[in-house]
Amino acid sequence: MIIVKIGGGKTINIAGIIEDLAGIDEPYVIVHGANALRDKLAEDLGQPKQVLTSVKGYSSVYSDEKLLDVMMMAYAGLRNKRIVELCHRHGINAVGLSGLDGKMVRGTRNKGIRVYQGKKLKIVRDFSGKPRSVNTSLLHLLLDNGYVPVLTVPIIDEHNAAINTENDDVVRVLQEALKADTVINLIEAPGFLENKDDAASLIKSISASDLAAREQQVEGRMKRKMLALKKLFEQGASRIIISDGRADYPVTDALAGNGTVIA
Amino acid sequence: MIIVKIGGGKTINIAGIIEDLAGIDEPYVIVHGANALRDKLAEDLGQPKQVLTSVKGYSSVYSDEKLLDVMMMAYAGLRNKRIVELCHRHGINAVGLSGLDGKMVRGTRNKGIRVYQGKKLKIVRDFSGKPRSVNTSLLHLLLDNGYVPVLTVPIIDEHNAAINTENDDVVRVLQEALKADTVINLIEAPGFLENKDDAASLIKSISASDLAAREQQVEGRMKRKMLALKKLFEQGASRIIISDGRADYPVTDALAGNGTVIA
Repeated sequence: MIIVKIGGGKTINIAGIIEDLAGIDEPYVIVHGANALRDKLAEDLGQPKQVLTSVKGYSSVYSDEKLLDVMMMAYAGLRNKRIVELCHRHGINAVGLSGLDGKMVRGTRNKGIRVYQGKKLKIVRDFSGKPRSVNTSLLHLLLDNGYVPVLTVPIIDEHNAAINTENDDVVRVLQEALKADTVINLIEAPGFLENKDDAASLIKSISASDLAAREQQVEGRMKRKMLALKKLFEQGASRIIISDGRADYPVTDALAGNGTVIA
Repeated sequence: MIIVKIGGGKTINIAGIIEDLAGIDEPYVIVHGANALRDKLAEDLGQPKQVLTSVKGYSSVYSDEKLLDVMMMAYAGLRNKRIVELCHRHGINAVGLSGLDGKMVRGTRNKGIRVYQGKKLKIVRDFSGKPRSVNTSLLHLLLDNGYVPVLTVPIIDEHNAAINTENDDVVRVLQEALKADTVINLIEAPGFLENKDDAASLIKSISASDLAAREQQVEGRMKRKMLALKKLFEQGASRIIISDGRADYPVTDALAGNGTVIA
């Protein structure tokens, strides 16, 4: 079982990825983002995204009801359905689902983020949270009947409200549920870079035991990604490939070991 | 088996409909529109919908690729996922799907519409068409496992492209596939009106045999609706209720026979 995560960047070669996946024999599940699309849509609708910075220095998108509306349009609507359409064009019998559908991805809502407003400390609570489990029974129902699930945010919280979450965390709970051995993460870079501004500084391989050390070297969103990767190994993944989603044959490249291989 | 069609008008009481459905024991499938939402979104994005008028005088929305994008956002994205969320809040185990997902609704693309451009006759081909069949096996897979399908456009054509279609026609192929005996159509009016500007002119019942005569009396979109209703009877529906989707308890009202009952 392979989990293929398609990043939400503007230059990801989605058509190439889907065409490539049509040649894969092993069963797989697709998880995709749409952050560039969401940001553009929010801008076009005159409600540009707001970023919250916690007192500890972590930043995150402020996910109010309006942002969730935009996410439903960008992730679960336009991006998900165009991917599903592309899949069928290549003979992949795709079914696109958000985490809300059949409670596919269940999570818990964040209690609130401590932020400074001027000099005042305030707790802001939005519709964001962490995924905790997936609906394994619905996943297997689809997979066993020949359908390829194409999953995306939002997910559903403990009170049945739609919440935003990190797709990397969705991949983590999905890998755990499906006991997937391989995770392919297609991003807008050749893989993990020693120096993020230098494409030639690609790190070709990282041992699972090195991940903790790497986690200390990086910052912000990348730190969260490293943490998510470490957990994947703790859960039993045997191979994670972070590879270039902009290439002509991103999946073939990834399976051939191009990019950063963590094993 | 009941098919509940929720109209896409601005004043439809979606929350009331879903709350109401939570009390229904018989199995049902939901089909929904989102035309007011689509039109507003298209306006907000600076690409207002264009209407084509055929040489025969029929008018239809010009469904180019951009309009399909907007439909995916409005119907399959925002409206579908908010309905699914509402369902879960009321204990309904909903799975939202467009006609693309698992090829749930398959159709054929229109060959083109003959329109006048100035004095020139031109054939314009867009991404619109007619639904022909539904994926009965996927529907039963979901229903038999306790999920309530929540369906919407776009659908998929014979070349696996996304196309726009009339939700009334989707209801027709769905009724045929599921052999649903009851179809509830929730609209922004008390039912069929003798005089469309007079809410008091409600037609309380129409016999199936009267439908053909009624079809001759009405025009434009309503004519198409009447035709779709006539076909439902030919296919074996025993009861169609067109009822007020703006009411507090639209489903209870409909099942109590409020609105226009065709039987």
